[in-house]
Amino acid sequence: MPAEAAPAWLWLPELPNPGSERVLGGDDAHYVSRVCRAEPGDRLLATDGEGMVATLEVLAARGEVRVAVVSSRREPAPAPVVVGCGAPERDRADWMIEKLAELSVTDFQPLECERSGWERFAGRADRLRRLAVAALRQSRQAWLLRIREPVALSGWIDSIPAGGRRSVADPDGGSFAATDPEGGDYAAIGPSSGFSPAEKQLLAGGGFHPVRLASGRLRTETAAVVWAGCREALRNPPAASG
Amino acid sequence: MPAEAAPAWLWLPELPNPGSERVLGGDDAHYVSRVCRAEPGDRLLATDGEGMVATLEVLAARGEVRVAVVSSRREPAPAPVVVGCGAPERDRADWMIEKLAELSVTDFQPLECERSGWERFAGRADRLRRLAVAALRQSRQAWLLRIREPVALSGWIDSIPAGGRRSVADPDGGSFAATDPEGGDYAAIGPSSGFSPAEKQLLAGGGFHPVRLASGRLRTETAAVVWAGCREALRNPPAASG
Repeated sequence: MPAEAAPAWLWLPELPNPGSERVLGGDDAHYVSRVCRAEPGDRLLATDGEGMVATLEVLAARGEVRVAVVSSRREPAPAPVVVGCGAPERDRADWMIEKLAELSVTDFQPLECERSGWERFAGRADRLRRLAVAALRQSRQAWLLRIREPVALSGWIDSIPAGGRRSVADPDGGSFAATDPEGGDYAAIGPSSGFSPAEKQLLAGGGFHPVRLASGRLRTETAAVVWAGCREALRNPPAASG
Repeated sequence: MPAEAAPAWLWLPELPNPGSERVLGGDDAHYVSRVCRAEPGDRLLATDGEGMVATLEVLAARGEVRVAVVSSRREPAPAPVVVGCGAPERDRADWMIEKLAELSVTDFQPLECERSGWERFAGRADRLRRLAVAALRQSRQAWLLRIREPVALSGWIDSIPAGGRRSVADPDGGSFAATDPEGGDYAAIGPSSGFSPAEKQLLAGGGFHPVRLASGRLRTETAAVVWAGCREALRNPPAASG
């Protein structure tokens, strides 16, 4: 493998225990043999997307790509970082999901809103989940962004455990506060047409504080990414760099 | 026009003086007559993208769309907010430009880097400028993101006036500081393959401080958008909401 590159980072659900072997499937096999140009004896890293990170040794890299699990460790589960989000316009969910996954959001919750529903979700869920996996590999994370099924706003609010911080993106809100709240960080982002007055009341009643993310109007997907980016950039103390 | 919607926001370079009339071109005419369903007597807003904001009155809205400039005001020029940026992968410049324009960046400076050039820029410049215009309209701003021609990193550094803040995105850097620096805010973002060691030295010598934007690795376009988003979200005191 090129000397300077970090070892490959694979996503292997149901990662086997150390001592076990596995034959890699199509995409992973192609990536290891063609993109990384791995040779027998090379080491790779893999995660199950649920906190397990394993070191693999390449046993065979031509034709069938076979690896052995050399060792594994478990990374602690992060506190929930949840974006509850109305539907953005057209295909703008694609890059929003990629960016939220890069920025260590743990859960994406599509919200059915008065002015806009997630009709497109059913046909796009698989694509969105593939984008989340690609981002996990790119940013070498041990936890995969969970993409939930759409729910109504009121149902989501009721489902949030007590504790944690609750924010709603609002151009008339207060400043973003740089804390890393215990118990989780929950953001509500309106759909492209905005939350309705009744929905704003529901959020206020549910303890969501309005937070202003920019001086101008932001699109749904921009607000979601800026919120997640701010909390990553301002986490204190910084986590070890990945 | 629908009662709840804000008045349309057009981009009209060389905006005429109050008292003058203008016939709108294809896209603007379509937008005013079909999307906004404007009627004679309706008011619109327009900017030249260089700080001038005018109130227009619709004189004719079927067939030829004709407007009169009723009044105009000039918004003060913002301090420079400049993103100097290596080339991202594939078509990822598109949404980066849209988001930087939404987030009130004033100048986008493509940087030719050791490991990656902006070969694709020449064929894409018109498209990127159209995306910046669309974002100006969407976010109702008076200043259009300027998209400059690519330059070498060293040339860019030498061209920056004294004063202002200079940051380079770096996973090993310090925390993002929430100031609104006088004299401008300049960020250097590496290409997808990163800045080379020599380029990092050049940036350090040029007074660029490493700033950590996330715990994991970020793609070029994500780092640029997170930097711009943080500075918008943390501006203090907040500007009036748009």
